[in-house]
Amino acid sequence: MLKFVSLLLALSFCQGLQHNNIDDYVEAEPVFEASKYGSLWPLPQKVQISEVSFKLTSSSFRIVDAKASSAGPSCSLLQSAYRRYYEYMFGSAKKQWWSKNNRRSDPSDLSELQVWITSPDSECDGYPSVTSDESCEYLPFLVHVMFYGGIQSGLETFSQLVFEDEYGAKSINAAIINDFPRFQHRGILLDSSRHFLPIKVILANLETMAMNKFNVFHWHIVDDQSFPYLSRTFPQLSEQGAYHPYTHVYTPADVKMVIEFARLRGIRVIPEFDTPGHTQSWGKGQKDLLTPCYSGSKPSGSFGPVNPILNTTYDFMAQFFTEISTVFPDGYVHLGGDEVDFTCWKSNPDIQKFMEQQHFGDDYRKLESFYIQKLLDIVTSTKKGYLIWQEVFDNGVKLKPDTVVHVWIGGGSDKEMSSVTAAGYTTILSAPWYLDYISYGQDWQKYYKVEPLNFEGTDEQKKLVIGGEACLWGEYVDATNLTPRLWPRASAVAERLWSAKDVTDIGDAFNRLSLHRCRMVERGIPAEPLFSSYCPHEYKGV
Amino acid sequence: MLKFVSLLLALSFCQGLQHNNIDDYVEAEPVFEASKYGSLWPLPQKVQISEVSFKLTSSSFRIVDAKASSAGPSCSLLQSAYRRYYEYMFGSAKKQWWSKNNRRSDPSDLSELQVWITSPDSECDGYPSVTSDESCEYLPFLVHVMFYGGIQSGLETFSQLVFEDEYGAKSINAAIINDFPRFQHRGILLDSSRHFLPIKVILANLETMAMNKFNVFHWHIVDDQSFPYLSRTFPQLSEQGAYHPYTHVYTPADVKMVIEFARLRGIRVIPEFDTPGHTQSWGKGQKDLLTPCYSGSKPSGSFGPVNPILNTTYDFMAQFFTEISTVFPDGYVHLGGDEVDFTCWKSNPDIQKFMEQQHFGDDYRKLESFYIQKLLDIVTSTKKGYLIWQEVFDNGVKLKPDTVVHVWIGGGSDKEMSSVTAAGYTTILSAPWYLDYISYGQDWQKYYKVEPLNFEGTDEQKKLVIGGEACLWGEYVDATNLTPRLWPRASAVAERLWSAKDVTDIGDAFNRLSLHRCRMVERGIPAEPLFSSYCPHEYKGV
Repeated sequence: MLKFVSLLLALSFCQGLQHNNIDDYVEAEPVFEASKYGSLWPLPQKVQISEVSFKLTSSSFRIVDAKASSAGPSCSLLQSAYRRYYEYMFGSAKKQWWSKNNRRSDPSDLSELQVWITSPDSECDGYPSVTSDESCEYLPFLVHVMFYGGIQSGLETFSQLVFEDEYGAKSINAAIINDFPRFQHRGILLDSSRHFLPIKVILANLETMAMNKFNVFHWHIVDDQSFPYLSRTFPQLSEQGAYHPYTHVYTPADVKMVIEFARLRGIRVIPEFDTPGHTQSWGKGQKDLLTPCYSGSKPSGSFGPVNPILNTTYDFMAQFFTEISTVFPDGYVHLGGDEVDFTCWKSNPDIQKFMEQQHFGDDYRKLESFYIQKLLDIVTSTKKGYLIWQEVFDNGVKLKPDTVVHVWIGGGSDKEMSSVTAAGYTTILSAPWYLDYISYGQDWQKYYKVEPLNFEGTDEQKKLVIGGEACLWGEYVDATNLTPRLWPRASAVAERLWSAKDVTDIGDAFNRLSLHRCRMVERGIPAEPLFSSYCPHEYKGV
Repeated sequence: MLKFVSLLLALSFCQGLQHNNIDDYVEAEPVFEASKYGSLWPLPQKVQISEVSFKLTSSSFRIVDAKASSAGPSCSLLQSAYRRYYEYMFGSAKKQWWSKNNRRSDPSDLSELQVWITSPDSECDGYPSVTSDESCEYLPFLVHVMFYGGIQSGLETFSQLVFEDEYGAKSINAAIINDFPRFQHRGILLDSSRHFLPIKVILANLETMAMNKFNVFHWHIVDDQSFPYLSRTFPQLSEQGAYHPYTHVYTPADVKMVIEFARLRGIRVIPEFDTPGHTQSWGKGQKDLLTPCYSGSKPSGSFGPVNPILNTTYDFMAQFFTEISTVFPDGYVHLGGDEVDFTCWKSNPDIQKFMEQQHFGDDYRKLESFYIQKLLDIVTSTKKGYLIWQEVFDNGVKLKPDTVVHVWIGGGSDKEMSSVTAAGYTTILSAPWYLDYISYGQDWQKYYKVEPLNFEGTDEQKKLVIGGEACLWGEYVDATNLTPRLWPRASAVAERLWSAKDVTDIGDAFNRLSLHRCRMVERGIPAEPLFSSYCPHEYKGV
């Protein structure tokens, strides 16, 4: 008989920080104590953990399809998830293989975890989408999910329940968990333009995203600084615009690999091709795409945003986004639209003439809207939805009702959330979560304390907030420092977007996150420390 | 005939940042341009680079002892330095080994670098010291050093002159360089107590220190949080005080390895055993070493600084520092002495009584001085010199004339430098170089702009400033993030301490440092980027 009460998990895993009795020490040091929720991160919606514990052996433990499951052994998504989580749990216990045949079996052993999927097998090969159901019911010891969307988080939760007892044996307490995300869109933005990010770095961070139940990789793939996307239709864009045409590009095969790696972990890949600003690198390979700037009556030799007055611009965009719509399977594309500087447009006599013809007066926002409007029509014709940065909304561009407005400007984000949702648009929040801004100390707490629905608005408006994204812009990060800078700081955002609204206890979060970060380290991810502490198995790299 | 004029090095190595003509882009972006000094870092004292260039092949190029050199092939310090620098220069060009026998020889090939040492061969096995002569004269293609202390920087400079031409061929321009450090003491402080640093991490950072011509590793090895130093005399200190007695300690063999690895690179290892504060972890393994704190008339169960009123304390310290004096060959030990909190001492009735007996009144600084004075006598008897943090000086402790006072307190460091040197003490500066404090953007510039002699004082006083240290305290760094957080930010400090006083051009520094950081990356060190940019060979890790 299992009694389900919320009880202390006997965690030998990372006993964590020192318990110093430092009366004479002035600094306020966070003191680690074991949370009653052990190392669960992000905290599932409903958790009951029993006192009864079981042991798991690497030689006999299996993750299997439940009999009632609609999934077959041919579903590679499931099979690879089972292997991945087996590896996470037993990866460091390889020495025990020889004990397989000569150990006595033990009634307190847990021999299998069953996975029961209700939805049809055909979904196995599909892509996660904005409407994926990620809910999961966990009983001892059965993961029951309606849809494939719940597999990733269900197995992650199970693996987070496993701990090492004092003899180093893998153990698990029986538990009942009912889980689903609070917000549907939980993203990480990485920027591969300001610094090129080797595929290896992207994959490692997708893997870490899955450990934190993030489900959207917002790939800010190109920008002013470089154009690493190798386009089949316009190969000269990366040929001329990448930092290097061979070593610093993403080939179609690379992109495919990223998308499949993400799919297996329940992660959507949404590429961003930001226009009309942030496009200096596009201009190198695509003649006449950018606006020639003038100084006085002569072209200065430099270029501004995309030239919105030429038909060739729209021909190019139509072809380009047709390619994008086939390369990226997700239903959405991020179209940018932020930070358009009008200086160059203003200097150009042809643009001035066009402004007159269109009766735009001096309002260059109208010209920007003219461009964006045509772009949105082009992208709509490729059957994709789109996300845009908040300026596009602020400037009054006509948007489809299902447009997602991405709020990023800091100070006024509460007001902006109000007005975007009052206008009936779906929105995601990034303003408080620009992780490229660093400061001394435990800034994860700042990210953790954000409440995305803390703005004035009706319940209907609040429902339009489908989530948020942690953004790590690339000015100061590349392969050398990206991963430890992102984790576990982004983990704070992960819990805010997944767990219930009332999960706000900073002390309990510190305790669980300390263990979660050591678990990431043990899985090979260089997640940086929260504070003075140690992990039983320190990072093996440099 | 070589004409020596200062000329542009044709650097294909990391052509660096984008040259965007971004008229319409608001952010002030640093623009990379090749420096006339190429990628030299820190800048040598006198540099003349000729137009004439030579090619180097991995198959035939050799670093050899000059005929006049006093060094023999049995000097392992030299032999390992030759190998290390050969590897740095040709490590990525292994594919060319097969071309050895069937290539034609070329008159413009450089076949060898000669190394000419004047000082006796017997010095080969010695340790670098505070009086080591690191000067070096470099002619095409001969490194002439008086003493072994010049080898490291001489070879580093030579390797920094080598670049890849547009065909990928390793090339070098003839040059004449006269080099010596401006300051004798150029250190990095790493803290292995707040987080344990695996040996691998320490060695990688010693290696990087050598690339930046740092010559002191200040090993802040123990502190409140943990005691990872395994003492032969008092093994219970780490047995009880380390995070883990096996996985999180430095054994005698580990310490020996660190010291030898450093020696081969011209780096001194100065350990810090900070007392009487910062000693919580000592108290776990050494009964009665720390002061019992009282609440009211009863011991509270917690402990304060080292107990200065017991004879057993001084017996312990005498034995302990006798061991330290044999384990660490350097002539100096750092004895700490910072941040002593008097609360616990004040609460203890035995201490109160002692204060009365000694006529110290209420001035607990006198008690602190009493302790430190006795400690200094103990350490003096082990034939070591010592460094102490500035509070020990501030509190008026009697110091030996050759004591080095370490200035670390921020705001008033100019005044402190004045008063320390006015009192006739040698000093090193760290106050402006606490690299654990991070902020957004290019903070290396802030470290670079520091002028250590910018305080009021006579020329005699200025001569007492023998250098400085960049400190990376351990609250927020461990194996996951230490290396990219330290480099290239510490490189800014390296140039300030090595190069001439008038080397202050931030633009030129940016250009050279961008290349230097890519060189560190190419040598396998995850040195983080200065700004949007790329390296031809990005970091291969995650």
